[in-house]
Amino acid sequence: MIVVKVGGSAGIDYDAVCADLAARVQAGERFVLVHGGSGETNRIAEALGHPPRFVTSPSGYTSRFTDRQTLEIFEMVYCGKMNKGIVERLQRHGVNAVGLSGLDGRIFEGRHKDSVRAVENGKVKVLRGDHTGTVERVNTHLIELLLDSGYLPVLTPPAASYEGVAINVDGDRAAAALATALHADALLLLSNVPGLLRAYPDERSLIPRIPAHDVEAYLEFAQDRMKKKVLGAAEAVAGGVRRVIFGDARAGQPISAALAGQGTVVE
Amino acid sequence: MIVVKVGGSAGIDYDAVCADLAARVQAGERFVLVHGGSGETNRIAEALGHPPRFVTSPSGYTSRFTDRQTLEIFEMVYCGKMNKGIVERLQRHGVNAVGLSGLDGRIFEGRHKDSVRAVENGKVKVLRGDHTGTVERVNTHLIELLLDSGYLPVLTPPAASYEGVAINVDGDRAAAALATALHADALLLLSNVPGLLRAYPDERSLIPRIPAHDVEAYLEFAQDRMKKKVLGAAEAVAGGVRRVIFGDARAGQPISAALAGQGTVVE
Repeated sequence: MIVVKVGGSAGIDYDAVCADLAARVQAGERFVLVHGGSGETNRIAEALGHPPRFVTSPSGYTSRFTDRQTLEIFEMVYCGKMNKGIVERLQRHGVNAVGLSGLDGRIFEGRHKDSVRAVENGKVKVLRGDHTGTVERVNTHLIELLLDSGYLPVLTPPAASYEGVAINVDGDRAAAALATALHADALLLLSNVPGLLRAYPDERSLIPRIPAHDVEAYLEFAQDRMKKKVLGAAEAVAGGVRRVIFGDARAGQPISAALAGQGTVVE
Repeated sequence: MIVVKVGGSAGIDYDAVCADLAARVQAGERFVLVHGGSGETNRIAEALGHPPRFVTSPSGYTSRFTDRQTLEIFEMVYCGKMNKGIVERLQRHGVNAVGLSGLDGRIFEGRHKDSVRAVENGKVKVLRGDHTGTVERVNTHLIELLLDSGYLPVLTPPAASYEGVAINVDGDRAAAALATALHADALLLLSNVPGLLRAYPDERSLIPRIPAHDVEAYLEFAQDRMKKKVLGAAEAVAGGVRRVIFGDARAGQPISAALAGQGTVVE
């Protein structure tokens, strides 16, 4: 069982990811796919006159401030356009995919954080009305039901709060929690870079291997969105996942290449 | 087993529908919910600068012309905003809902019609690049798997073509095909009118009963979107569904009221 997370930034080749995934599923391997949709969400939010707002926490992590209107735009893009676009691609390849959010069957659950601490102009402010949280519980029943019946689950944020409210959660860390809960053999975190770079954006500075016991020491090399991937990798290996691979989803056979050891391998 | 279809026009009270549904599910009744999203799709399409285009067939049926961009907007609203909004409401009521499109698990399948005949300025034209079709096959396996495991399926167009392409299908007729395939005891078609009206929009002209063998004779009273509901009702009763009810989803307890005989009952 392998969990693949494919990001939502510009440059990702979803056709390539889906073709590669379909070939491996048809060869008998078991997968769960998790995806993002950040880039397209920004574009649609701008077009709808409700531009995205990003906030930086005091510890340096960047996240989307998700008011109710942003949450609905987020759902339109992640659960509508992106999720059904990926399911359609897989169906065209003959894979019986089933697209679900973390709300469906309460697959991803966590605590609703209504307020967020953000650094603005050097000062720490508290912003309220946020619909975010972190996945604390993965309800694997529905996923296992689907896998055992020959369906391929295609999952995406948002998650459900314990009260049933939709909350925006980080997709990489959700995938890490999922890989842990499913006792996955590997977690692939695919994005629009070749892996973790020692000197971003210089692709020749790729870090090929990271020892599993030392992942957090590599946080210093991670920029922006890569930080949550490194954090997710640390959480997955701590949860018992033996291999986490940061791979490139821009072309070729992204899943096969990562499983063959290209990118940054944490093990 | 009861199939409930709730429309997507202005004035529908989804909170009322979900609260009523949740109470009945928790009392032990089995339901599948199907929903639309037409009104909101029109609004978002306008806001994104790709306004909706409706065409009228030579036989007088109106439908959305669905080019690829429209299909993606359609998916954003139906599968994203509407579907997850309904799943969230049900989860807040403690019902473990699972939202799916007809693409997922190929629940709704049909033939892709790439071109449509439309009457414009009194002439019949052929328009190409359409992503529409009619549900010809309902794959009940996934729905029954979910129901048997205690989940409530919440379904929405699009459907999958036999080639795996997303196609826009009429939700009322999809619900009729679903009710037939599941051997449902009843099909409820809820919208923003009290039922079928003899003199639309005069609500005092409600037709309370239609004999099952004579549904198509009532097509003459149906305006616009109500035409497909009457057609769906005819298909459902021909398929063995004993009761079809056109009910009002604007307030109160829409499902309980319809099951108690309010609205237009076809039986």
